[in-house]
Amino acid sequence: MNPKPSTSRRRWLGFAASLSAGLTACKSSKPAADAGPSLLGKPIRPYGERSPFETAARTLADDRFPETSNSYTPLQDSYGILTPSSLHYERHHSGVPSLDPARHQLLIHGLVDRPLIFSLDDLKRLPSQSRIYFMECSGNSNGEWSQKSGLNAARSHGLASCSEWTGVPLSLLLAEAGIRKPAQWLIAEGADACKMQRSLPLEKAMKDTLVAWGQNGEPLRPEQGYPLRLVVPGWEGNISVKWLRRLKATEQPYMSRDETSKYTDLMTDGTARIFTFTMEAKSVITFPSGGQKLNGPGPYQITGLAWSGRGRIERVEVSTDGGTTWRAATLQEPRLPIAFTRFHLPWDWNGSAAALQSRALDETGYLQPTHDALIAARGANSLYHYNGIKTWQVWRNGTVTNA
Amino acid sequence: MNPKPSTSRRRWLGFAASLSAGLTACKSSKPAADAGPSLLGKPIRPYGERSPFETAARTLADDRFPETSNSYTPLQDSYGILTPSSLHYERHHSGVPSLDPARHQLLIHGLVDRPLIFSLDDLKRLPSQSRIYFMECSGNSNGEWSQKSGLNAARSHGLASCSEWTGVPLSLLLAEAGIRKPAQWLIAEGADACKMQRSLPLEKAMKDTLVAWGQNGEPLRPEQGYPLRLVVPGWEGNISVKWLRRLKATEQPYMSRDETSKYTDLMTDGTARIFTFTMEAKSVITFPSGGQKLNGPGPYQITGLAWSGRGRIERVEVSTDGGTTWRAATLQEPRLPIAFTRFHLPWDWNGSAAALQSRALDETGYLQPTHDALIAARGANSLYHYNGIKTWQVWRNGTVTNA
Repeated sequence: MNPKPSTSRRRWLGFAASLSAGLTACKSSKPAADAGPSLLGKPIRPYGERSPFETAARTLADDRFPETSNSYTPLQDSYGILTPSSLHYERHHSGVPSLDPARHQLLIHGLVDRPLIFSLDDLKRLPSQSRIYFMECSGNSNGEWSQKSGLNAARSHGLASCSEWTGVPLSLLLAEAGIRKPAQWLIAEGADACKMQRSLPLEKAMKDTLVAWGQNGEPLRPEQGYPLRLVVPGWEGNISVKWLRRLKATEQPYMSRDETSKYTDLMTDGTARIFTFTMEAKSVITFPSGGQKLNGPGPYQITGLAWSGRGRIERVEVSTDGGTTWRAATLQEPRLPIAFTRFHLPWDWNGSAAALQSRALDETGYLQPTHDALIAARGANSLYHYNGIKTWQVWRNGTVTNA
Repeated sequence: MNPKPSTSRRRWLGFAASLSAGLTACKSSKPAADAGPSLLGKPIRPYGERSPFETAARTLADDRFPETSNSYTPLQDSYGILTPSSLHYERHHSGVPSLDPARHQLLIHGLVDRPLIFSLDDLKRLPSQSRIYFMECSGNSNGEWSQKSGLNAARSHGLASCSEWTGVPLSLLLAEAGIRKPAQWLIAEGADACKMQRSLPLEKAMKDTLVAWGQNGEPLRPEQGYPLRLVVPGWEGNISVKWLRRLKATEQPYMSRDETSKYTDLMTDGTARIFTFTMEAKSVITFPSGGQKLNGPGPYQITGLAWSGRGRIERVEVSTDGGTTWRAATLQEPRLPIAFTRFHLPWDWNGSAAALQSRALDETGYLQPTHDALIAARGANSLYHYNGIKTWQVWRNGTVTNA
């Protein structure tokens, strides 16, 4: 399926020598660039920062309402499968609360044998796990329903990020509290000003949900729920309730604002899909993508990200002719379940206009649909749960735009 | 080998209710801690920072010479397998240079058919890979030779960190340049003021070495070689030359300062081990570890990190009685080759003094040695390449110290 390394190697042989401006074939073996600094550099320090030459940033969706808005991860600048915590996408409903971890508590109550309150220290003493999972807002790519979304990969797909999350399995806490028989749901509540509430099916809570305090090797960032959040693997991000303060076991869901008027899909017959939790297989090409520019014809490496809330990515195919023909991309290992998977494909651009697409197949056999297939199935009313194939248009002058 | 989840679950049942101070069994199901903020929180922003409540920091080895010193990763505060870039250990020989990526170049010359110069843009256009690898200074744990090292896990083992590195395989660049037959080594040179030089065997260069520009999803941090470094998987950190500016193909190694007077092991017979590149299997318990304190007898989760430059970690065993008896720890998946592997073991502390140890076995069958075995094999003159078993002493009052 994937091109053999040797084939891939041959594709690039002779390419470096042909790179247009930057690359110099030297006539002597003397360093041409012998201009390194000769003065002592900067000292060691307790907590590092990125280079001042680097400026990748989350883009802000709406400056007018910065507490109830969102910011996009710059996927077009991403490497590998991990998102730096500083660039993890944000979606807040009443801003980022400042919570003192020494005072923060988690209450578990409702239909339980033993209502319990945990401090952070209590939770950290319990057996923890770390898992690399993507997080995606169900509103990610919502402009794609009308195909007017994205100037770039951040605006079209940047409400998705991937981190290593650390916490205690929620199943362990629920076993401690003792769930009573009629309970089928947990109402999760955040400590932000809107007291974000979402209804989580007990089955998912028991299966793989984490009560997390760690992200990428250190405590959660404030924007991702510091000091405590749910991580509900593969489900729409909103249910991974941030600043988690309360879990109440109930017989029925609460039908809260964000599972009725929001985060639901209005169908053409006037009914709505609700509690459609799982984020289905999806992919996006991050290079070349909108806003970038190719430096003339020649060999390039197409790369992008694929993910599925149902498990591992099994295959990613790439088209350079708008979906007429497809080639299998190389999937970078490790391919972790419910995590970003990086794909690569060498491409010799001949200088003609090209329409780049990617489509992901997950381990359950689910194939990422076309835009038209998604509209046919769900209509054009929805704002959420878009996972159609994305097209980037490469123009003859090398510019890349939203198709 | 690993305890079944169900067994592990049973160990903790009833524990939460017994947690001493923090945990409250509520009499009513009303939230006891209904004191969340009700004001709008902070807005979205382009580049996030950690909570002001969090203060984990690299410790500085020597404030007097901050440009030629090192800083330790606070492994005792670590979660999961990834080190935040801001806390990645540092070891500099003439400080951190400030390099403009637009002007930085990599020269490949010496015994090659085509001497080449690459800009960053040239390199980024080539096929890249991302891999999660640990990086470890060969001087890590050097105080352990005399067992006077570590007040805590940072000081004893914190010259090791783990990141996702992104770059182009060096083999591809060498194929472009065309290595001439007699060449067996590459001299790698940094752009720091000391022009750090190390000799890299061609075989390793061709096998899995990366010329890297990415770390944990964004550009390298300045302290880790921005904008370009070698990543030589599993080998002593010093050879992963930072601020990489030059690779010269040669017949012989250069016998540079840092492969002769430094980073070598003086044996008892007066000879020295040199070019001992591979960092052998090693592990350290990060909780409970020096400087931490147990809050009275009861159940705890012992956790730590294991790694091997030879490949995957196959098994980690933990002793609580100074090495008399051992139990297999649970290894967290994914266990990636040449990466940190997190291990866990539940432990019921009965309140007596205890001596905690861990030992790692890698997939080649290499078992981490005891301190005495290492001294017997290599003598007591060395400062480098220590990978003996580490002991943490738990005292009856719950304090944990270097044994």
